[in-house]
Amino acid sequence: MKRPGIVGSGQLAVMLAEAAGPMGLNLALQASSASDPACKLVDEVVIGAATDGAATTQLAERCDAIGFENEWVDLKTIAELEKRGLEFQPSVAVLQQLVDKRSQHLLLERLNLPCPRWCDLAEVVSAGGALPEHMELPAMAKAMTGGYDGQGTERVLNRASLEALLMRVDPRRWILEELVPFEHELAVVVARDAAGQVELMPLVETHQHQQVCEWVLAPAGVSHAVEARVRSIAVSLVTALDYVGVLAIEMFLGPQGLLINELAPRTHNSGHFSIEACSTSQFQQQLTLLSGQPPSAVEWLASGAFMVNLLGFETSDCPYSDRLQQLQRLPGAHLHWYGKEQSRPGRKLGHLTFLLQAKDPGLRRREAMERLQEVREHWPAPGQTP
Amino acid sequence: MKRPGIVGSGQLAVMLAEAAGPMGLNLALQASSASDPACKLVDEVVIGAATDGAATTQLAERCDAIGFENEWVDLKTIAELEKRGLEFQPSVAVLQQLVDKRSQHLLLERLNLPCPRWCDLAEVVSAGGALPEHMELPAMAKAMTGGYDGQGTERVLNRASLEALLMRVDPRRWILEELVPFEHELAVVVARDAAGQVELMPLVETHQHQQVCEWVLAPAGVSHAVEARVRSIAVSLVTALDYVGVLAIEMFLGPQGLLINELAPRTHNSGHFSIEACSTSQFQQQLTLLSGQPPSAVEWLASGAFMVNLLGFETSDCPYSDRLQQLQRLPGAHLHWYGKEQSRPGRKLGHLTFLLQAKDPGLRRREAMERLQEVREHWPAPGQTP
Repeated sequence: MKRPGIVGSGQLAVMLAEAAGPMGLNLALQASSASDPACKLVDEVVIGAATDGAATTQLAERCDAIGFENEWVDLKTIAELEKRGLEFQPSVAVLQQLVDKRSQHLLLERLNLPCPRWCDLAEVVSAGGALPEHMELPAMAKAMTGGYDGQGTERVLNRASLEALLMRVDPRRWILEELVPFEHELAVVVARDAAGQVELMPLVETHQHQQVCEWVLAPAGVSHAVEARVRSIAVSLVTALDYVGVLAIEMFLGPQGLLINELAPRTHNSGHFSIEACSTSQFQQQLTLLSGQPPSAVEWLASGAFMVNLLGFETSDCPYSDRLQQLQRLPGAHLHWYGKEQSRPGRKLGHLTFLLQAKDPGLRRREAMERLQEVREHWPAPGQTP
Repeated sequence: MKRPGIVGSGQLAVMLAEAAGPMGLNLALQASSASDPACKLVDEVVIGAATDGAATTQLAERCDAIGFENEWVDLKTIAELEKRGLEFQPSVAVLQQLVDKRSQHLLLERLNLPCPRWCDLAEVVSAGGALPEHMELPAMAKAMTGGYDGQGTERVLNRASLEALLMRVDPRRWILEELVPFEHELAVVVARDAAGQVELMPLVETHQHQQVCEWVLAPAGVSHAVEARVRSIAVSLVTALDYVGVLAIEMFLGPQGLLINELAPRTHNSGHFSIEACSTSQFQQQLTLLSGQPPSAVEWLASGAFMVNLLGFETSDCPYSDRLQQLQRLPGAHLHWYGKEQSRPGRKLGHLTFLLQAKDPGLRRREAMERLQEVREHWPAPGQTP
């Protein structure tokens, strides 16, 4: 089996490292700091931010195939390493098209896949502040790269907030998107190998609070028609791209139908439920592909699953042992705590997964909301303090 | 009396317009949109963002002295107009030193006034990501201009969040500040005329939630020594600058003593209480100076005051008539509703002021917290939903 490497050292790397051991894989990581919690879980670590090409070159000396848990990488170095024969999942040619929100929009338009209307913020500046005809305010401004936990996304209510935004950001690195009216946000993780075999994780519904994911309900309570449409979008996307690896797709479902919100060339918060709920987790799936094997078929081990993010509610050094004990004692709760050194409001510190029993989508949702209420007795909702 | 003009059309302009009428002043405004609520309250409006120099030139034709409620202005045009004899409060020479957070730091260092340690974000980039010796992470990143309602301020926890920030923002327009450990945040509005007469509004304590002001308690419950130190800092600052107009000073009080956090060449959220609680409000004071009169002495009309901001808790079209009726009925509540068309989480939509009876600082704080509890029955705390 090929030896896998991962660029990045956040919570996704923690869960990848946890999955690698039982699979008999000796995972190597490129970590931005030796104190990152994922570093304790693997034998080999190269220190360097994800953007640090020299560190990626060192990682490449230790691995056969490299995947990502952080997509802000040094594409130039990766292109050189790929030319020298190292395998990246996805390839540089694919990464270049997914590397930021702007290139994703261009890709989706080229593939004729549905996405929100948008324009370059630089285009607005060149036009002396005038929006192109297909855009209007309020709109959503998004940093092309570097956004996380709600940072890098900003609602632009009016001309004054547009003016203020332009003072702070580099307009060449931001886009403006229409505010999509949606009923649900959906997400799916898809896996494809070089031979073209595709496997999808279950389609889920995600719920955000101020641009940060609060919880995930799986499977999503949508019609078969919507599920079939998602499957068709996902398969045609990875096939058209000749994508190898795992890809997360976030979507809006609303009056305009399905619109693709964002693509991530990696595992995703919306797929964490699969650790307990599926025969193959998204982390096992990524490692399976990196080790050179075809993607596994994904079967449900329960009727559904409910994942709740444990988001920071204060700035502190994370002394949450009492809360964590109480959460761990909740019936059926599977606690994942990422071991971060510092908390701040909205930061993802851990998550809880519950398996659901109900077969009916409506009852399943009610079951999930009961679990959420239990969690909220021990961990505050986003934006609230205990 | 000179005819006053104001650049800007947010809630400060609303309260300036409300103050102007009873003073017999015919205020003119430069407003970013004709639908801005302040426009309904004055006879003369020039349409143009605060940064729009052509609009400021038009405003100048209608006024004798111009002040600001928004400091992001076109300094070049203002310098030309000042040369032609128009009066600006403060003057261009002063504005240039207060125009952004970086120039404020340079000014405070030059005047030997205490402020947090800082560096340019561009300096960190030039050093390949290394921080200068006097700085460490976590730190606070601040946009030099364009920040409001918590936008443009970002906690930088670690190397990874620093890297992510650098992808989104223009480092030449951001600074990095030390995270100041403080016990209280204080603020004061100071007024000075061309003859050098200085009057201070009462010193207040402000309370923020995620960088947005939640409430203000006046007077601040601090020692006479701290009050005297604030007075001395404020008077020496406006005198050294030859400042004419009103100036808001925000400060941290902690183990390092008093540190100046930010300066604003205008009225300020922390001074709203003065409308009901003082013989001269901050808005009357700014208009008094613009009309060419010396600043008024400021007397208390009560033992103290408590102001609570009504911050948006959702994205909506502000249909809050039921809530506002209930708030208005609270005993002793003075409601100010700014009439904005759209709400979003954290946006300042209005405020409530209560006069306080207690003479003792401890009892006054308790009285204020009782008022806060009553408000919270009808309007959620920041980050919470009803």
